[in-house]
Order: sequence, then C-alpha cells, then structure tokens
Amino acid sequence: MKHLLALFLAISLCSYGQQDDQKIKEIFDTAMTQSSSYDWLNHLSNQIGGRLSGSVQAEEAVQYTYKELKKLDIDRAYLEPVMVPKWVRGTPEFAYVETSPGNTFNVPICALGGSISTPALGLKAPIVEVIGIEGLEKVGRANIEGKIVFFNEPMDQTYVQTLQAYGKAGKQRVNGAAEAAKYGAVGVIVRSLSTRLDDYPHTGSLHYSQDPSVPRIPAAAISTNGAELLSKTLELNPNLKFFFKQSCRTMADVQSYNVVAEIKGSEFPDEIIVVGGHLDSWDLGDGSHDDGAGCVQSMGVIELFNKIGYQPKRTIRAVMFMNEENGLRGGTQYAENAKKNKENHIFGLESDLGGFTPRGFTFGASDKQFAKIETWKPLFEPYLVNTFFRGGGGADIGPLKNVDSSVVLSGLRPDPQRYFDHHHAANDTFEHVNKRELHLGLGAMASLIYLVDQYGF
Amino acid sequence: MKHLLALFLAISLCSYGQQDDQKIKEIFDTAMTQSSSYDWLNHLSNQIGGRLSGSVQAEEAVQYTYKELKKLDIDRAYLEPVMVPKWVRGTPEFAYVETSPGNTFNVPICALGGSISTPALGLKAPIVEVIGIEGLEKVGRANIEGKIVFFNEPMDQTYVQTLQAYGKAGKQRVNGAAEAAKYGAVGVIVRSLSTRLDDYPHTGSLHYSQDPSVPRIPAAAISTNGAELLSKTLELNPNLKFFFKQSCRTMADVQSYNVVAEIKGSEFPDEIIVVGGHLDSWDLGDGSHDDGAGCVQSMGVIELFNKIGYQPKRTIRAVMFMNEENGLRGGTQYAENAKKNKENHIFGLESDLGGFTPRGFTFGASDKQFAKIETWKPLFEPYLVNTFFRGGGGADIGPLKNVDSSVVLSGLRPDPQRYFDHHHAANDTFEHVNKRELHLGLGAMASLIYLVDQYGF
Repeated sequence: MKHLLALFLAISLCSYGQQDDQKIKEIFDTAMTQSSSYDWLNHLSNQIGGRLSGSVQAEEAVQYTYKELKKLDIDRAYLEPVMVPKWVRGTPEFAYVETSPGNTFNVPICALGGSISTPALGLKAPIVEVIGIEGLEKVGRANIEGKIVFFNEPMDQTYVQTLQAYGKAGKQRVNGAAEAAKYGAVGVIVRSLSTRLDDYPHTGSLHYSQDPSVPRIPAAAISTNGAELLSKTLELNPNLKFFFKQSCRTMADVQSYNVVAEIKGSEFPDEIIVVGGHLDSWDLGDGSHDDGAGCVQSMGVIELFNKIGYQPKRTIRAVMFMNEENGLRGGTQYAENAKKNKENHIFGLESDLGGFTPRGFTFGASDKQFAKIETWKPLFEPYLVNTFFRGGGGADIGPLKNVDSSVVLSGLRPDPQRYFDHHHAANDTFEHVNKRELHLGLGAMASLIYLVDQYGF
Repeated sequence: MKHLLALFLAISLCSYGQQDDQKIKEIFDTAMTQSSSYDWLNHLSNQIGGRLSGSVQAEEAVQYTYKELKKLDIDRAYLEPVMVPKWVRGTPEFAYVETSPGNTFNVPICALGGSISTPALGLKAPIVEVIGIEGLEKVGRANIEGKIVFFNEPMDQTYVQTLQAYGKAGKQRVNGAAEAAKYGAVGVIVRSLSTRLDDYPHTGSLHYSQDPSVPRIPAAAISTNGAELLSKTLELNPNLKFFFKQSCRTMADVQSYNVVAEIKGSEFPDEIIVVGGHLDSWDLGDGSHDDGAGCVQSMGVIELFNKIGYQPKRTIRAVMFMNEENGLRGGTQYAENAKKNKENHIFGLESDLGGFTPRGFTFGASDKQFAKIETWKPLFEPYLVNTFFRGGGGADIGPLKNVDSSVVLSGLRPDPQRYFDHHHAANDTFEHVNKRELHLGLGAMASLIYLVDQYGF
C-alpha cells in the first residue's frame, strides 16, 4: 500500500510538461558541446593555480572570474566584500622517523590548515599511534603526555558514499590537535584522508580549542603510504622518535570578495535562486576538483542560459564564494547580506564534490518540497542523474538556511569514488578532470535550476 | 494503469529474501577490502602488457591467469584450445601532410587491426575528406578515385551513453576501407574513435569486403587532434597530399586458449552460469580497461565466493575469452563446445566496457525473465548500480544465444564517460584504472551472479 500511495502522490504532484523534456535535452546538448566551463577551469587551474584564501592567486581568481562573467549577457555582476583569514604554509614541511640515533627515513607530510608552526628547529618526540579521537581515552594520558599523537584511522573502504567515510575518519584531522592537547600531546600527525595508498599528504583545516587552557600544538598530515610505514615501524620499535618541522602561520585578515553574476527574473524578480561553488582552494594542488569545478559549472549555468536564449522568471545568481576551506567567511557574509537586504532566497544549489560524472542531488527540503522535487526525477533519467536523496546542500550555501528555513538547499552529487584520491592534495590538478564529466554536471545543474525557475516550490 | 500493472507484477514476482540484503552487503564489503582483482590487473598490465591475439604476451596472459585461477578453491581449471588470427603491426607507422613539395608536417597514426601494409616506401596521394560511410556517395567516385579517403565523422558528444556514439561513428573504421575501395580509393585514414581531443591514434578492427573484386586498401587511424588539423589544412589547401607508411601484416593462425575456472553447482550442476571478459587486447596500450578489467573482475567473482565461503547451487564458470578484438574466435569456440557437449547455459555475464564505476547492467532476456530481474533492483540501490535496461550482453558471450535462445545474457555497464578516451589507444594503461571503481564493478557482478545462482530464471 505504501508503494501505491507514493505512486498516486507522484502522479497528482506531477508538475512538468512535455516541453520540459525538450528543454532539458537542449540544456544537456548545449552543455556537452558549447560550454566554456572546461576552458575556464583550465585557466583557473593552469594559469592561476591553488587559491588559498588571502593569497595573490585567490585575488587573481576573483578578478578573472569577475571579468569572464561580465562578458556574459547578465543584468549585473559585482564583488561582495568579505574579510578572510590568511594562513600561509611557509617553507616546505619536513619529517622523518628516527628508529635509533642518526638512523632515519623521511616521510611525506604537510601542515594542516590553521596549524601553528613547530619550533624553528623542528619538534622531535616519541610518537604514539591512536585510532580515532576515541582512541585517546583508550591509550590514556600516561602514554600520550610529552609525545606526538599519530592518528591513524583509515577511511573505511566499504562506504560506497566516500563522503561518509570522510566524515567519520575526518574527525581526527579537524579535532585531533585540540583533543590530543588535552592529554598532554606536543604535536599531532594525522593519516591523510584519502581512499588510496600513495605518497600525497592531504591538508585540510583543523579547529583548535577555544578554551585558552588547552595549548595549541602543531599538526600535520602524513601520506597514506607514510602512515602505513610509520605504523609498521612502530610495531617493530615503539620507542622510535618522530621529527617534523613546519613554519606555517596565521597572518592578519585580508580583504577579499565573493564574485556574483545575476540575471534578473522576468516574473518574480524578488525570488532568488543561487548556484555556486567556492573559488578558494588549498595550496598544494591547483584546486581543479575542489572547487574550481563547482565555480566553472556555476558560471556555466549563466552562460548556458544565454546560449539557449532562456530568460528566467526568477532571479538567478551565480556565486563564487570565497574562503570555504578555512573560515566559510564568504558563505557567511553572503547570508548576512541577504538578511540585511531582506532578500528572498527560494533555492540554493552548490557543487563542491568534484567535477566527476553527476549521479544526482541531495536536497535539504521539507517533505512537501521534496515530494515535488521527486516528480522531476524522470526528466533526469536519460542523463543518469536520477539519484535524489535528502541531505545538505553545501557549506557555502548552508548559512542561508538560518536566514529563512524555507529555502531549499541542494548539492550536486557526482560519482564519489575518486574524489578523495585528490581532495586537498598536490594531485588535485586539471588533468584529473574529464571534460565530459564536468559538462554533464553542468547540464544537470542547469536543468535543476531551470525546473526550480519554472515551477518554484 | 500501465504503472500499476507493473507495480503489481513486480510485487508478485518479488523473489528474494531479507538474507539477500545481508549477503550482498557481504559481497560488496569483501570486494572493496579483500579482492585480488586490482593486483592481478597490475600484473597483467605492467608485467605482461598489451595482449594482441597470437602474441607472446597473449600466451603469457593465458599462463598467468590459469596459474592464478588454479590457486583458488575450485573444482577444475582448464585451457580450451582455439586457433586465433595473428596480425602484427610491424615497424611504427609514419604519416605526414604535404602542403607543397617538401613542405610537410607529421601527424600521429596507427594501422587499423587487420589492415594490409602500404607499399614498402609508403603511399602518397591526394586526400579527400568524407563524413561517414554515407559521405562517399555525396563526394562521388570522380572525387575519390586514386585518392586516400579521410573519414572524419566525430563521435557525437551529446550521447550520454558513449557506446551509442561509438556505434554510429564506428562504421567508418569497421567498413570504411571496404566501402571506399568501391569508389576507387587507394587508402583510408579514419578519425580516431575518441571522445577527447588529443594526440593518441586509436586502433581497432576493420572488415575488408569478402568480394574479391573489391581491392583491399591500407587503412590507419589518425588522432583526433591530427584529424582536426588535417581537416583545417584541407580547407586551406584541398590539393595537399597525404603520405603514410605501415608494415603490418596477417600471419598464419596460432594456437591459443580460453582460460576457464569452474565451481561445480551443489544442487543443479548442469545449469551453467558463465562470467567473463576477454584476455586479448590491442597492442598500443596495456589493455587495462579493454579488457584486463573484465578478466580480473571475473576471476574476482570466483575468489570472492571462496572468501565468503559461498557454495553455489549452480555451476559457475569464469572464462577469460581469447581474441575478442579481431576475430571472436574464443567466444565462438566456447559456444561451439557448449553445443557439442550439450551444456545448459542459463546465464552469461560479461564485463567489457572498462573498469569504471558500475552503473548497472544490460540484459538480453525475455519479458518474463527481465521482469524477474527487475525485482532485484532494490538490492543494488545502496551501491548505486541500479540502472537495468534491455540490451546485449557482450561480444564473447553473444554466440551462446545461438546455442540456446533462452539463455539470459548480461553486460556490466560502468560509467561510460571516460571509456573512449582510452579505448584501443596507447593510454589504455593501468594508472587510469581506479581500484575502488574496479572493485565496485566486481561487487556488482558477484551480486548478480549470486542472485541468478539462488533463484535461476
């Protein structure tokens, strides 16, 4: 009976016409043959490179995307000012394992974003392996005090949705330094959040404790191969010492911007639909998947509507958010301005899980809103983008929910198998983005925006 | 009403139990964490390399997979003899465009499989661009005679299922030489069947006419970048000449083998389920996606059943077929032997579209058989492998349908966006196979085999 009810509900809610099939085919065909997204990404990745908040490259990316968006047929483009943190990596990090005095081998590490530096001559201490934050309690203060904590919980390969594995093992990276410090640790080494065994350390932000009694200790990621080697070596020799040296630091905040392009709605100009990605990235790779892809796809939605001559009923904004990686200042500022200006956002769509083949979308929506969205699924079936499920939209658009809880937030869900091979690492580079996959994602995003624009909620 | 009927049909046919959810989770988890498939592929690709039928490498691959299969807990492994054609590429091919005497630039080509050589000193002639086989008639005999025909129909980027685009543009490669020869052409250059613009020529088989009055002319593929360049240069200078030189030839047939491993069914030993890929490949790359992936996944099904201690009710055979690429002798021989031995094959599953994230399966089945299969879809949803549609199974298992039309044939359908970037080219190499994607495909295949074994048709 449940199935029958769902079926009747679907039929009664069905809210699209036959012309939509055609329009969505036109959108996908245009995405696959005429989009500039891949070329924009080439420029962002290969001419500009990694775009850490507050860096010269981030500023270049603001100017480049602003210039490109102004070439499109839009009603306005503008830069939305936001102050962002500036953390710099400094000289390349260096680490070794010392199994006996003078007997050492090097392992690849990188500082975690926001970490403090080690002493100028580096930090050498015994190291103790811990699995997950909860492992600290098991190992106990007596075995941690004065040592470096080596968090070595791997990402669980059995999760088909790798994001879930990331969420689970990721606590080590985000909270490991703050928690280990409470047990008297002097530094933290975290196994890279990667689904692969290789030599790339993966950076990413950490959160120090806000409690001034908890010391801030330096923290770095070690490559997965390095983690395996360190773990095996510790088994043989629990008394080995670990040395690392990093000179990263946090400087004064810097003026930066969200980049916004807008097409005014012809019928409901006060109803705003936002589509975005984040323009900042980490500094090790060129940020092609995270999140150059989401930016050029969002720009591509505007360009695509231009190319097919589509005049939206509602106001559409493409937003390149600044500082998702280590502060979320851009997304926060955008929502604050929306509140201040009494803007009515009805829908937000973010692409921030890589430029891979799109599989579907997540939706943060009420039951009624989601039921309506589900009636659109058949339109996405020919493009194999028909996995719709409940979930968050994306970090940058998240703060909009606090302004108006009725806004529907959606996230593009690309195929998740390869994302964490590249995420936050030196191999997040342009050659790992496939043009067809990127442009299929654009087609899916533009189609969803089109349907929301046509039918609202 | 149609929907309601389908729904009732589905409920009434529903043919699996709750324990199957658990079993399939066990299958996927084991595939993702314990399979040897990726390591076997590493050996096939990096220690053996391209495995053209009749080559030393193909023979090495037969011995290697036979040896590995014999290590598993199976009832028997055997080599099934089959004579295969032996075509050799000879010295590297060479081609240039001559815009005026002595004024030349080189373009990357490779001989098509089965092509004859050019004269020893090469072939130089005017060249005429033609779009598709049907373009020959448009251009006409007067404009073709004595010239090289340059087939330049690109793969259509708007097909989400790239295999359809391959089928369409692929006629140029398969039949171009035979058809152009009827118009008096002296050679054929075919745009590579690739979805990407790059410098790799993609080989693949051609079919010469069986009519002895139609001459056999040499044929080669040109890279997509080369094709674009040649086309633009022809626009500027239609009188340019094209030179190419290749020394490929067909030698006497060679003894080779299908490699078979079998677990005897405990309840219905006479009902045979076959799972396979083809062990031969082209010679330019190492054949990782086409079709090393399908072979190691098929071997992986047997290993996986061993690991989870699953004793099948029906007889399961993993078959590494020989000579799919340029003869289909292995698949043909296997079906002939099945007929001769009065074997009852109930199901065949082939993986021959690359080791990418699995999206679903095609099924060559009756309406009733397919209705039953569709009831299994929910079991595949958690793994995002739930796109089931009607279609062929795969070239190697195809001949089984002629032995018994009631056999159900299925093909694994991995994500199709990247396959033709690598297909039959020098960049079909191991580093382009992702371990998680390969092993998810294995999980999907083993799950389907498990269900067919449990419930038959």
